[in-house]
Amino acid sequence: MASFKKYRVDSNFRLSQVHPGESPFLEGDEAAQVAEIDALAIELDEMQDLLHAEGRRKVLLVLQGMDSSGKDGTIRWVFSRTSPMGVRVTAFKAPSDDERAHDYLWRCHAVVPRSGEIAVWNRSHYEDVLVPVVEGWIDKAETRRRYAQINDFERLLIETGTVIVKCMLHIGKDEQRERLQARIDTPGKQWKFDLGDLEVRTKWNAYQQAYGKALRATSTEHAPWYVIPADNKRHRNLMIARLLMKTLRQMKLKVPPADPALKGMVVK
Amino acid sequence: MASFKKYRVDSNFRLSQVHPGESPFLEGDEAAQVAEIDALAIELDEMQDLLHAEGRRKVLLVLQGMDSSGKDGTIRWVFSRTSPMGVRVTAFKAPSDDERAHDYLWRCHAVVPRSGEIAVWNRSHYEDVLVPVVEGWIDKAETRRRYAQINDFERLLIETGTVIVKCMLHIGKDEQRERLQARIDTPGKQWKFDLGDLEVRTKWNAYQQAYGKALRATSTEHAPWYVIPADNKRHRNLMIARLLMKTLRQMKLKVPPADPALKGMVVK
Repeated sequence: MASFKKYRVDSNFRLSQVHPGESPFLEGDEAAQVAEIDALAIELDEMQDLLHAEGRRKVLLVLQGMDSSGKDGTIRWVFSRTSPMGVRVTAFKAPSDDERAHDYLWRCHAVVPRSGEIAVWNRSHYEDVLVPVVEGWIDKAETRRRYAQINDFERLLIETGTVIVKCMLHIGKDEQRERLQARIDTPGKQWKFDLGDLEVRTKWNAYQQAYGKALRATSTEHAPWYVIPADNKRHRNLMIARLLMKTLRQMKLKVPPADPALKGMVVK
Repeated sequence: MASFKKYRVDSNFRLSQVHPGESPFLEGDEAAQVAEIDALAIELDEMQDLLHAEGRRKVLLVLQGMDSSGKDGTIRWVFSRTSPMGVRVTAFKAPSDDERAHDYLWRCHAVVPRSGEIAVWNRSHYEDVLVPVVEGWIDKAETRRRYAQINDFERLLIETGTVIVKCMLHIGKDEQRERLQARIDTPGKQWKFDLGDLEVRTKWNAYQQAYGKALRATSTEHAPWYVIPADNKRHRNLMIARLLMKTLRQMKLKVPPADPALKGMVVK
């Protein structure tokens, strides 16, 4: 079975060492792959029940990636069998005036998972070390300060019972072109298309560079980044589902022990 | 096929006219029923995609019922195939100090669905015309004022694009005894048990009466109440899934029309 090691970001990591078209986690034929994704989704639902029953710890899944890299689709398929009661998804957009009037972690802190919950962030606080860097709104010193603030924020969450899984959905520039073109050409998909995505696309290299730096600076021992080759959608879903399941299994979640005080109690 | 008419609350409705053990919507054998629930869950996912694509309207599903009546299970099964991105579940607990410092609709208004979203309320603002009535914290005049405030609040939501579906999960007192007893006797289920549920159970008749009055007073033309016979879990899931699907079909959701401005556009 493929290893996550190559895809875990360390201080020497270069985004260019992972090809977006790789698919190391795909084995067998398509039917077997689809069946595995579904089996993992069902197991994830069971794990979520245990997380809820235990009621002490929290899980935060952070999804980052360029436009059309498949963040929505990942959520759709990885959580295709989980009760929506236990999963809270937040899609972070461009900040509102109210959000801009606070520090950039304020809106994120407001939606961290509560005990027993899985929170999924579709984009995240990492947007604030990507867009402002590419646009030149913040200088290198401020960018470094933010990396440190982010690491501190995540350490707080970890020390108070949260397990954090961070995935960067890595697609190639050609694959993005095809996906955006398909949105333009397919009437039923046009609502997904945003002219702004073309503007961001012209800054592709600057974004790749900003991603590389941010990933290296914030891939810590307790909240490492994983780069997910994402040109192949099935590979992306399978790799993220496996990574999440590996993490949940390591948590050794258990239903709380029987309460002796309830022994023999009869409801009237 | 069974009709919803008998279960729709009007001004003459009495809770006693619906037996919790009825199962008019169950047809065929168990396998066929399970398959229908799953097929409805898959269609619901498609409808949610359309609701999101259209991006104008909202859906609010309100679930009320006595302890162990199956609110969690309903959410688990009716939304077993829907991406958690499009469904936001709020479980209303006893109000916090901060919530108590505001009017009772404040915390509800904060979590109404946004455009394109389905919100599910596990308990709701209706708790505020049940608990305080049974406990005698508010008098008849205040209760009547609250009914009117609730109807006004829901009309605001409806007039601004929300479709509201309200279900009262109706279980019998014997069925509740069995469910609570099972929670006590099964170590893996004990975490679901709350001693406070036994206290509420002693006021069963007062709650049934408070429910009857509240349902009659707030079952409006645009936001009617449906009473769901819920002793049988499969019946409960199937009836609610069918009711929700009927409502969504009536909305005639459509993907927005093709944008002529995008015709022939090429991504570089």
